[in-house]
Amino acid sequence: MFDLYTSSTPNGQRASIMLEETGQPYTTHWIDLSKGEQRKPAFLRLNPSGRIPVLVDHDSSGREPLVLTQSVAIVQYLAEKTGKLLPEDLIKRARVYEWMQFHATDIGATLFTCFYLQRRSLFGLSMAAFILRRWALGLYHHFDEQLAAQPYLAGPEYTIADVIVLPGALAQENRLRDYRNITRWLEDLKQRPAVQQGLAASSRGSSHAE
Amino acid sequence: MFDLYTSSTPNGQRASIMLEETGQPYTTHWIDLSKGEQRKPAFLRLNPSGRIPVLVDHDSSGREPLVLTQSVAIVQYLAEKTGKLLPEDLIKRARVYEWMQFHATDIGATLFTCFYLQRRSLFGLSMAAFILRRWALGLYHHFDEQLAAQPYLAGPEYTIADVIVLPGALAQENRLRDYRNITRWLEDLKQRPAVQQGLAASSRGSSHAE
Repeated sequence: MFDLYTSSTPNGQRASIMLEETGQPYTTHWIDLSKGEQRKPAFLRLNPSGRIPVLVDHDSSGREPLVLTQSVAIVQYLAEKTGKLLPEDLIKRARVYEWMQFHATDIGATLFTCFYLQRRSLFGLSMAAFILRRWALGLYHHFDEQLAAQPYLAGPEYTIADVIVLPGALAQENRLRDYRNITRWLEDLKQRPAVQQGLAASSRGSSHAE
Repeated sequence: MFDLYTSSTPNGQRASIMLEETGQPYTTHWIDLSKGEQRKPAFLRLNPSGRIPVLVDHDSSGREPLVLTQSVAIVQYLAEKTGKLLPEDLIKRARVYEWMQFHATDIGATLFTCFYLQRRSLFGLSMAAFILRRWALGLYHHFDEQLAAQPYLAGPEYTIADVIVLPGALAQENRLRDYRNITRWLEDLKQRPAVQQGLAASSRGSSHAE
């Protein structure tokens, strides 16, 4: 049984989609970022760096519950624990890691810095955010080329690379419409019940439990 | 036998340190970023996104050589291939992933955006880079607290979390001197022959091969 502390951001959605994809039972705790709930003492005890998502795994082999932060680490942990969405073959796994890191570090982290700068609303900072966003969004053309050659990011199978990349691409969907292969892949993934339920679980006011 | 295309950046150093730590034979190909060699056709055939490091594994089980980009993916692949620097236990592995992603996405990627903005040398962009750098460097205090409690980032053992975090921390060493535990950890890791050789292998003009 898991507890997930999340919010409706791409990082939160990665975690809830992965819990749904692997069929794990979990309770969602919605953190209202606009009210600064991520900086309140109760949350900081879970994650001293004050960010969602946080996964708590109460089934941790007799030890005390595992409290895990960082969306990519959470997704990788769930893949290893359940044996799902991560190929056994080392070379196929490497390809999964390559695409998920490409997005997590180069696109996702850069778009987060844009968000961080724009909240400060000074002209120079907005320009910086504009330049960084243009750069990060431009990187999606590599994803489009990859998806022209195969149905999913790391090959013929749906993997955690798709789970990691999907929420950020959905958040930028209007800006990515010229990429036909990304658009086709997004339409495909949006049909998955686990994706729909995972997105709903990280939305405001949901009290998902099963 | 591996080929490593690298340069003296934290991302390049992650890869060469990991090759040294796992005792793999490899040939270094130094890419001169100041001359734009990463954008020449020969390199773009290896990595269309034009960035180092790139690892080529010629021993890929009878298939064509594996060409792998993204420093975190390269380090994870080498850990899985050799069975080194990554615990078997799922919960211990999760802790490794948490710390390596924390650095790779939040600190490393943000400092890269600072570098990207500063090359453009407009006042507003420099201010954005200043603000982002201050934020990213501030996150190191979580690493310092973690290293106060244990010798290595993910616990009592040296793991790929340390390999991923080390080069970026070394590059910022002067700014991190107030963090006593990070300083102790850096001094410890700098004594490792594999770290010394890995850093040398990603330095200009080396033609490392063994």
